[in-house]
Amino acid sequence: MNEFKYKGNILYCEDVSILDIVKDYSTPFYLYSHRTIVDHFLKIKNAFSAIDPLICFSMKANSNLNICKALLNEGCGLDIVSGGELYKALKIGCPPSKIVYASVGKTEEEIETAIRKKIFSFNVESIPELIMIDTVARRLKTKPRVALRVNPDVKPDTHDYITTGTKEKKFGIDFKTAEDIFDNANKYSNVSIKGLHVHIGSQITDVEPFITSLKKVLDFVEKGNIGLEWLNIGGGFGIMYHDESAKTAEDFARAIIPILKARNLKIILEPGRFIVGSGGILVCKVLYVKTGVTGKNFAIIDAGMNDLIRPSLYKAYHEVLPVAKLDTTSLVYDVVGPICESGDYLALDRSLPKLSSGEYLAVMSAGAYGYTMASNYNSRPRPAEIMVIDGHVKIIRRAETYKNLIAGERIIKELK
Amino acid sequence: MNEFKYKGNILYCEDVSILDIVKDYSTPFYLYSHRTIVDHFLKIKNAFSAIDPLICFSMKANSNLNICKALLNEGCGLDIVSGGELYKALKIGCPPSKIVYASVGKTEEEIETAIRKKIFSFNVESIPELIMIDTVARRLKTKPRVALRVNPDVKPDTHDYITTGTKEKKFGIDFKTAEDIFDNANKYSNVSIKGLHVHIGSQITDVEPFITSLKKVLDFVEKGNIGLEWLNIGGGFGIMYHDESAKTAEDFARAIIPILKARNLKIILEPGRFIVGSGGILVCKVLYVKTGVTGKNFAIIDAGMNDLIRPSLYKAYHEVLPVAKLDTTSLVYDVVGPICESGDYLALDRSLPKLSSGEYLAVMSAGAYGYTMASNYNSRPRPAEIMVIDGHVKIIRRAETYKNLIAGERIIKELK
Ligand SMILES: Cc1ncc(COP(=O)(O)O)c(C=O)c1O
Ligand SMILES: Cc1ncc(COP(=O)(O)O)c(C=O)c1O
Repeated sequence: MNEFKYKGNILYCEDVSILDIVKDYSTPFYLYSHRTIVDHFLKIKNAFSAIDPLICFSMKANSNLNICKALLNEGCGLDIVSGGELYKALKIGCPPSKIVYASVGKTEEEIETAIRKKIFSFNVESIPELIMIDTVARRLKTKPRVALRVNPDVKPDTHDYITTGTKEKKFGIDFKTAEDIFDNANKYSNVSIKGLHVHIGSQITDVEPFITSLKKVLDFVEKGNIGLEWLNIGGGFGIMYHDESAKTAEDFARAIIPILKARNLKIILEPGRFIVGSGGILVCKVLYVKTGVTGKNFAIIDAGMNDLIRPSLYKAYHEVLPVAKLDTTSLVYDVVGPICESGDYLALDRSLPKLSSGEYLAVMSAGAYGYTMASNYNSRPRPAEIMVIDGHVKIIRRAETYKNLIAGERIIKELK
Repeated sequence: MNEFKYKGNILYCEDVSILDIVKDYSTPFYLYSHRTIVDHFLKIKNAFSAIDPLICFSMKANSNLNICKALLNEGCGLDIVSGGELYKALKIGCPPSKIVYASVGKTEEEIETAIRKKIFSFNVESIPELIMIDTVARRLKTKPRVALRVNPDVKPDTHDYITTGTKEKKFGIDFKTAEDIFDNANKYSNVSIKGLHVHIGSQITDVEPFITSLKKVLDFVEKGNIGLEWLNIGGGFGIMYHDESAKTAEDFARAIIPILKARNLKIILEPGRFIVGSGGILVCKVLYVKTGVTGKNFAIIDAGMNDLIRPSLYKAYHEVLPVAKLDTTSLVYDVVGPICESGDYLALDRSLPKLSSGEYLAVMSAGAYGYTMASNYNSRPRPAEIMVIDGHVKIIRRAETYKNLIAGERIIKELK
């Protein structure tokens, strides 16, 4: 469910016609529906209410301050992966007690800052990292909470790049090593190891991989005697980009709650994509319609792989819809960007109403892993981010300018 | 040939020890050798001197102002693909007569600016674009030069994403359509169509694809009677990342010059990668060495796919070298970044001297399509760019700060 729907032939964001928005703002831009994003958060919250989890939105999916703030306002916490995300989380007033921090490569400085700010916990990915946290904590004379991220060796049916819980991946600690750590917890006397963390990947549309991995984790908890206080079950709930079978928050909850209930564990969730994925779109304009050498139709748009790299990087499918349905004859198009490489496409072989230059298109479900992965490739300024909230259209991040592109540069005297 | 070489056990950039540079600048950073970059430009210039081409460095490969300026200072021109690159080119004083502009998606504003600034030529990729340029030129009462970019349908042996001259791609115009355009040039009376452009792809390590495509283009020139004045033969000269057979500038020149000589055509070249590719490296630090669940060794470094996406996006190979060779036992590592996805790696299954945390590594040949494709994914500030020039170590782009990450954002009142 999302709030990007046609009324008549015109695509709306909530109650605002996108044709009206493009009159005021130049394309390309990301457009978010506040109501959709909050609604998806509340869906998870309600579905899991029986176990009253702390839900930490995974900022890597979308770290726009306004989007994170909208979620904080509903009681959500934040899942961070870097000092930059910690900086942003604190900037918008996220209570540190609602911040969890995962990453295989936390630097000493990042660890120190996070300890000083008293975040809820570190999700620890290796023994060397545990030693680093322990060392910094000793120096700071504190005892931060850590959860061991275990690698359950479960393979969900998703892109290899976003599979994280199989044994050949860089993430997490195997059960044997985790057991050793718990057995020798006195070696790490400056940290409190009272949590476990597991995250098996992203865009998982099935419940089974969650069940399998949680069962493995709970088997481990039962066998050991590790005095566990909380379990962070990660993110990964998939959304419908195309013809995936849509699972609702209730579907996931129905499968997961029975496994966790009555365990007397505080539960943490780290959803990213499920909350923001379908809450944002990329609005762009057709620059040229071109017939290729083989007769193929290309719709060349003013957004490219620098704005949204998912199609190119993950072969991800994003639905493309006309903002105004003008023509009923349909043709098959490759929807491609202006960037000088063939990897620059947003959609291939799509049946669309016959397009003309100047028409607007919406690349759907671009709210997660969209802007956060954008670059300045081909010296293209990154697009604006706009949000519809309570009937208002608000810029939540300005488009970059040419001047921004060279902000950190100056010509050195040797080359003048 | 490049100026990143070991002296004893220490990797140097020109005459400067990289171990000294990391004392003053924190990792990760891109490090360039001015001498290498200029040398590679001069190699092409000298190799092709018999036909005295205009060499336009392809900014998309690396648009750092200082690197482009260093090349301008040697007489090089610039190949641009966007308004942003035009802005940068003019910023550093590139003579417009040495600017050529390719892209399937030039906007009306970009076209207008480029006409006003009197660039040498547009490389036109479609009839609708030609009409747009003609229309804008009529309005501005000028007659800009255009070259038709033809698509010769030649498939070089390179990654599909950077193959651009095969018939199913979005680039260029087929010969038949090009013929029609020349035959009906009076329909486009506000442009001067006196050039042809062909670019078949990037990282081409063989001479044959160039020969085949140029022969096709010249056949076309001979059959028609098109009064051609210049031929832009694009870029694409490959470099040695791994075990490619290295072709020198002379190898390419020896194959290409005989085809072009005595044609009485001005020749334009657009090399990017060949000039800057091996002139830059990415210097990073090992944060943790981790043994994975299967016993695999991971060297977790402080640079990630946000800094250099080529391995993840193109499965590109970059050699990884220790800045100081400390240990002679060698082990096999996956060299991975701190980003929370499995696609975040820089090198897989590499034999390296046994590594410890705190050691520095160099990701080689990262000068082209490195920084230009960098992003802020995982809220990671982009790294600094540093250049060694005449024995000096100079910052040519500051590292971003956390503050830069939120420059365009402010919390709207509805969410306060
Ligand atoms: C540790 C961790 N938690 C949560 C997430 C969020 O995943 P998703 O956006 O699929 O919910 C990720 C994504 O990579 C992750 O690595
Ligand atoms: C039109 C054009 N010219 C030149 C280049 C530069 O290619 P390379 O860096 O391989 O020399 C490209 C690269 O994509 C291009 O598209």
